[in-house]
Amino acid sequence: MSQIRLYDTTLRDGTQAEDISFLVADKVRIAEMLDDLGIHYIEGGWPGSNPKDIAFFKEIRNISLKQAKIAAFGSTRRARVKPEDDDNIRTLIQAEPDTITIFGKSWDFHVREALRISLEQNLELINDSLVYLKQHVGEVIYDAEHFFDGYKANPAYALQTLKAAADADVDCIVLCDTNGGSLPFEIADIIDDVRKHISTPLGIHAHNDSECAVANSLTAVEHGAVHVQGTINGFGERCGNANLCSIAPALTLKMNRPCMTEDQLRQLRIASRTVYELANLVPNKHQPYVGNSAFAHKGGVHVSAIQRHPETYEHIRPEKVGNLTRVLVSDLSGRSNILAKAEQFNIDLDSKDPVTQEILETIKNLENQGFQFEGAEASFELMMRRALGTLRHFFSVLGFRVIDTKRHGDDNPLSEATIQVKVGGKIEHTAAEGRGPVNALDHALRKALEKFYPQLKQMKLLDYKVRVLPAGRGTASITRVLIESGDKNSRWGTVGVSDNIIDASYQALIDAIQYKLVQDYAADKKE
Amino acid sequence: MSQIRLYDTTLRDGTQAEDISFLVADKVRIAEMLDDLGIHYIEGGWPGSNPKDIAFFKEIRNISLKQAKIAAFGSTRRARVKPEDDDNIRTLIQAEPDTITIFGKSWDFHVREALRISLEQNLELINDSLVYLKQHVGEVIYDAEHFFDGYKANPAYALQTLKAAADADVDCIVLCDTNGGSLPFEIADIIDDVRKHISTPLGIHAHNDSECAVANSLTAVEHGAVHVQGTINGFGERCGNANLCSIAPALTLKMNRPCMTEDQLRQLRIASRTVYELANLVPNKHQPYVGNSAFAHKGGVHVSAIQRHPETYEHIRPEKVGNLTRVLVSDLSGRSNILAKAEQFNIDLDSKDPVTQEILETIKNLENQGFQFEGAEASFELMMRRALGTLRHFFSVLGFRVIDTKRHGDDNPLSEATIQVKVGGKIEHTAAEGRGPVNALDHALRKALEKFYPQLKQMKLLDYKVRVLPAGRGTASITRVLIESGDKNSRWGTVGVSDNIIDASYQALIDAIQYKLVQDYAADKKE
Repeated sequence: MSQIRLYDTTLRDGTQAEDISFLVADKVRIAEMLDDLGIHYIEGGWPGSNPKDIAFFKEIRNISLKQAKIAAFGSTRRARVKPEDDDNIRTLIQAEPDTITIFGKSWDFHVREALRISLEQNLELINDSLVYLKQHVGEVIYDAEHFFDGYKANPAYALQTLKAAADADVDCIVLCDTNGGSLPFEIADIIDDVRKHISTPLGIHAHNDSECAVANSLTAVEHGAVHVQGTINGFGERCGNANLCSIAPALTLKMNRPCMTEDQLRQLRIASRTVYELANLVPNKHQPYVGNSAFAHKGGVHVSAIQRHPETYEHIRPEKVGNLTRVLVSDLSGRSNILAKAEQFNIDLDSKDPVTQEILETIKNLENQGFQFEGAEASFELMMRRALGTLRHFFSVLGFRVIDTKRHGDDNPLSEATIQVKVGGKIEHTAAEGRGPVNALDHALRKALEKFYPQLKQMKLLDYKVRVLPAGRGTASITRVLIESGDKNSRWGTVGVSDNIIDASYQALIDAIQYKLVQDYAADKKE
Repeated sequence: MSQIRLYDTTLRDGTQAEDISFLVADKVRIAEMLDDLGIHYIEGGWPGSNPKDIAFFKEIRNISLKQAKIAAFGSTRRARVKPEDDDNIRTLIQAEPDTITIFGKSWDFHVREALRISLEQNLELINDSLVYLKQHVGEVIYDAEHFFDGYKANPAYALQTLKAAADADVDCIVLCDTNGGSLPFEIADIIDDVRKHISTPLGIHAHNDSECAVANSLTAVEHGAVHVQGTINGFGERCGNANLCSIAPALTLKMNRPCMTEDQLRQLRIASRTVYELANLVPNKHQPYVGNSAFAHKGGVHVSAIQRHPETYEHIRPEKVGNLTRVLVSDLSGRSNILAKAEQFNIDLDSKDPVTQEILETIKNLENQGFQFEGAEASFELMMRRALGTLRHFFSVLGFRVIDTKRHGDDNPLSEATIQVKVGGKIEHTAAEGRGPVNALDHALRKALEKFYPQLKQMKLLDYKVRVLPAGRGTASITRVLIESGDKNSRWGTVGVSDNIIDASYQALIDAIQYKLVQDYAADKKE
């Protein structure tokens, strides 16, 4: 069986998604990462459509990739121009990619309505564009846009368009479910028929509008496709493209069609998260294989089974894709979850210890107030240590004030904070400015505490999230702040809840600092 | 062909998801909505597992539903107890549901490792639990847990467990892909084999760990299943359950197996959003059929095609599921997007007008600064009107100050704001308190402006979102605030961006108020 080739279009089709836009530097970074991951083709953009994409192709030529080929995307020539006189085709060649992919129309309706040419002219235009490109670049791929819709409307004509491409000796013909409307059994039947007429290697390009993009891609492979297009995390226009983060492990681990090495597959989760980070999007927790919840267990029955035999409730070993089994803390959870957490934190806790019950009740209370410890494990650990009476008292805050002032004409308000802390017997009263009230408060707090705990200088605030919980449930609306902090060794999340955003932020900040001091104190004791 | 029955388990399996928990009142509200939607079965919970679920069954008995049956979920009896002496089974009957669904083990590995009984004993336990339940309730459904994994490991035994259920004359046998590891072609082959041995109506219960839950469910129907279990929005443990919001329209609109009326299908989007709202989760924009981006078009080529023929890039008419076509504003967009937006806002704009180019450049600039108008269309409209010079000047702010103070022992900081506004020639200087600095600023601003514009009293702040854009891209980190406001007629979104959260919030607040005044002024002029 031929090896499956993965063709990534995160940098082109992925950026068609609402919310997604990459700087050229981001695109280069993603390309290097995809190369490390073993992706065979990286579609960098449509050089004819915008200057950002041209810049990418220029920059990527200076990078030596391990194995990935760089592909440029474009369209067949315009109706009344020769290929050599077509600006779009010229720009494609000038981008100097390893591979050129162009799309053409398979659906008679589009030929008439969008191109406004005859069906015959469309066949010529597909064929001569491809013939011309084959003379100028090592590898040419043909994307048959709207192929499945076109086939459903007029199968004979849709097949003729593929023949026009096959006759140009293209290296691969990719069947596109452009509108994402097809279902897996339709894909199977149509590809079976295509293979009776076309011997060129086939590929699949699926969109997720029917929530079937991954299934459609895997079904296409099962029916003979050898080239799969998709994006990291399924980014893409409307409902997204086929998600390579779900396709690669299914092919490799379940379908015996390995397309990544074990080492590469283990990088899958980090690759997924890097792309989210560069796109500045919050990762989808529930994403298959790589999401934070993909191997997270909440039900008490599941948790105790998982601890004995992970295969009871896990379809693959999460480590294979760089993920982890997690046990969640929640109001559905039982004693076994709390004990599993304690073990993770190296806290000695016995299931018969009444403090276990107390912790369970504290969690329920706090969750009712709007707290959520998923994503704020440091706050959870501090809460456990508080219940056990093993939390060291490092400092107390006597009070603070934050003032934001803006006068007409100022660009930004001025934010300043004053704070009084007590460490041992000493009182420290400081003031600081900041970008915004929370930042000012953070500065003042650190300034006061760093005198006593200089290691706080290593700690950084990495992420700050605010969630306003909806009102109308009988109580006033509530703000939940999640803070992610880090030092050179680790990252940790803390949470604060209040009807006042400053207070919620303050709680999460205090927990973040306290956690840092607890960790360092424990490390010092060990040495 | 038998009609497909939809079985919703949002209230039971859905709540196994990380982050999801419903109050009893929420559960009742969701059940009524599912009934309106035409869902055939509503699984309310596992009465044996927690008091919240018992409370739901009690409350739902007082509600008269149109057609949905209420199902209670539980397990087969314990190993060494008779069905009539099993607490779990007793509690199920006491809940007085229309239908009882119990699960049993199909996988020999689980029988040995989890139940620790013989394979034969497991068959007895399945059979006599079901026989007993059939005597006490009108309809009994059997969920064959881990059926597909069990079949793959030991097909003969997995089929025997189904026979044990079929012999008890159950109304439906549901094949569960509990770990979500199966692929659609496996589902197809296995169901084909099951149908050779079992004549009881079959159902499917799929999880999304392979990103194939919807495809697997539809494939099961294609191969003869007549009962489909799933949840609204695909909520569920780990990667979620099969998403009924994608299954129902595919069955009805694409597979000619209608399971909802046209009117019910049109409520799909609102049902999806209501469940997100009650679960207090941000809706998934890219969700097929019902998401905000599901019919959103960004690429310039697509936009002009869509305006002529929606079927060119839309797999179904969005109105059929209560959704809408949207045209996005972004740095990939061209003139045609701006013109489409102008038309939507009833702004007269000509494609040749140089102001169109100016608006495009302004958008690019603002997007570079971190602005995002997706979700903040009111700010976008104001920006267009500003560029055209048709924005009325309603007020100006001369300055403000916000002070938050907390002393040791206080529950919450005290937040107060002072503000100076100028309307016409008059200066108004006011002060107000609030829950948090933004709330205080909002109060002070309204207090000052309501004197001149009493209609602002009808306006409410509905949602407030803060996004901290990551730093490390050469500039300092930036905060983006999105505010959603509403009055009795409509809702609108505004945006502010600054390195100071107070300033970003202030910008979005000012836009929200200005938008309200613009709308009311236009409405007054019409009357």
